[in-house]
Amino acid sequence: MRFAKGHGTGNDFVILPDPDGLLELSPQLVAQICARRTGLGADGVLRLVRLAAAGLPGTGLAGAGLAGSGLTGSGAPSAEWFMDYRNGDGSIAEMCGNGIRVFARYLLDHGLAAGPVIPIATRAGIRQVRLAAAGELTVDMGGARVLGAGSAIVAGRSCPGLAITVGNPHLACLVEDPVAGFDLSSAPLVDGRQFPGGANVELVRVTGDHRAEMRVYERGAGVTLSCGTGAVAAAVAAAAAAGEWRGGPATSWTVEVPGGILAVTPDVTASLLTGSAVIVAAGDLDETWLAGLGAAARSVV
Amino acid sequence: MRFAKGHGTGNDFVILPDPDGLLELSPQLVAQICARRTGLGADGVLRLVRLAAAGLPGTGLAGAGLAGSGLTGSGAPSAEWFMDYRNGDGSIAEMCGNGIRVFARYLLDHGLAAGPVIPIATRAGIRQVRLAAAGELTVDMGGARVLGAGSAIVAGRSCPGLAITVGNPHLACLVEDPVAGFDLSSAPLVDGRQFPGGANVELVRVTGDHRAEMRVYERGAGVTLSCGTGAVAAAVAAAAAAGEWRGGPATSWTVEVPGGILAVTPDVTASLLTGSAVIVAAGDLDETWLAGLGAAARSVV
Repeated sequence: MRFAKGHGTGNDFVILPDPDGLLELSPQLVAQICARRTGLGADGVLRLVRLAAAGLPGTGLAGAGLAGSGLTGSGAPSAEWFMDYRNGDGSIAEMCGNGIRVFARYLLDHGLAAGPVIPIATRAGIRQVRLAAAGELTVDMGGARVLGAGSAIVAGRSCPGLAITVGNPHLACLVEDPVAGFDLSSAPLVDGRQFPGGANVELVRVTGDHRAEMRVYERGAGVTLSCGTGAVAAAVAAAAAAGEWRGGPATSWTVEVPGGILAVTPDVTASLLTGSAVIVAAGDLDETWLAGLGAAARSVV
Repeated sequence: MRFAKGHGTGNDFVILPDPDGLLELSPQLVAQICARRTGLGADGVLRLVRLAAAGLPGTGLAGAGLAGSGLTGSGAPSAEWFMDYRNGDGSIAEMCGNGIRVFARYLLDHGLAAGPVIPIATRAGIRQVRLAAAGELTVDMGGARVLGAGSAIVAGRSCPGLAITVGNPHLACLVEDPVAGFDLSSAPLVDGRQFPGGANVELVRVTGDHRAEMRVYERGAGVTLSCGTGAVAAAVAAAAAAGEWRGGPATSWTVEVPGGILAVTPDVTASLLTGSAVIVAAGDLDETWLAGLGAAARSVV
């Protein structure tokens, strides 16, 4: 089984090229590949499959959210490749703003897409990825909207913020102290009536002209080095605080995350996220290891 | 640059085959390869080089501890391969009981050694690795000695134990409660007069006939899934408590660590450690990634 490993601003992924949709990718296998020490280690898996082959029997995708997404209908927009994204625990996710850049980088490196615009099918719909300057990639993250005010309790400190949706729920809290000083070793508390399914919580500090630093606690994943939708939410909150959030595309913000630097142009219909996407290595999973996985008594991360 | 990734009871390594000793392996490059998210991710690197080529100009080994180790003298015992072990932070280490099994597994898989006994040169001298049952490997870890009584403070709890040397310093504390219940989120405190350079601290609970469970806080590395010398120290402490430590080889102990199961026969001259050694994947580091490392502003783990 071929693989590549790469990262986008410190969010890392194992890419499994499977153009014809032949891989049976069980949640257990994904978790074993993503196990940091006993597997290859990654935040998630990006299975790379031709859209025409996705959803066929044997791909495990038929009931996995692709049907009904509008990707398979007769009027669906055109994309050659489908990004089958799985979280490191084996669960299915719709989209990943850092992952899709790494996915596009792999396509470009292997001549599977030419650019400068690459449409990629995801469970959240078709997303356009564009080549940007300095080898970076820009992805359309969809619309962002402010839902209202809210607040989080971060290690006993009350942090007011804005509830923002970027497809998924965020609470972006503007703070005055450097974000590195906040204790995120446990999950921030949010109002369960406002966020019945929980929220991703961002701590955002404006550090200069259209420049901010951010740390994020991701719902279900904890503290991470980077979060694409979180960076969009951070830029919306910073733009709103500056009186610049009026629904149309806002001025671009530079958002520093622990894993690197992202550029964000927030918008109610098509927010743009620009950042690095790097392939680190490629090779083959060991056949003996794969054969022995079924017999593994337990998975160790 | 070719690589393989593997693990021994949850201690993971990137193997860099370099038979002719041509690689310039700077501490920075090792740290970037071992970075969990922006690199391949591993606890350490095992460079695989012919002993005859180790220490040559260009290998970075000339001043790195090989000279004077007895490995290069005219009366040195015979080994074809040298294990150039580096910690994940790029520093040099002498030996690693889990790493040397993975190193031997790679040699066997690639027909570079035949077994059943494989002598491998390390900075701590030649170590014999033997094929054991069920695909496991046994390594001679050298002698262990009890230095005296001591105690550690683990999250406010005082834990009496034995100071033990297995080449490196350990404090192995026998406890009565399940080891999973101890808080090892910060370093246990040991007596600085007894351990001027610090110590690895093991919590050991006897769970049955010559069977114990162990967790370890490694000096400089923190909590790990497994530690070869720590497992030897745990077996010595358990054997001593059972009145079975008399200096000669003791009865074998089964030591359960979070990453798996090890078998240990402790001895004052040649303690034996048996456990799994697994190759997970192999391939090539990306040339573009390698070329860009020099320009990386900072390393992110």
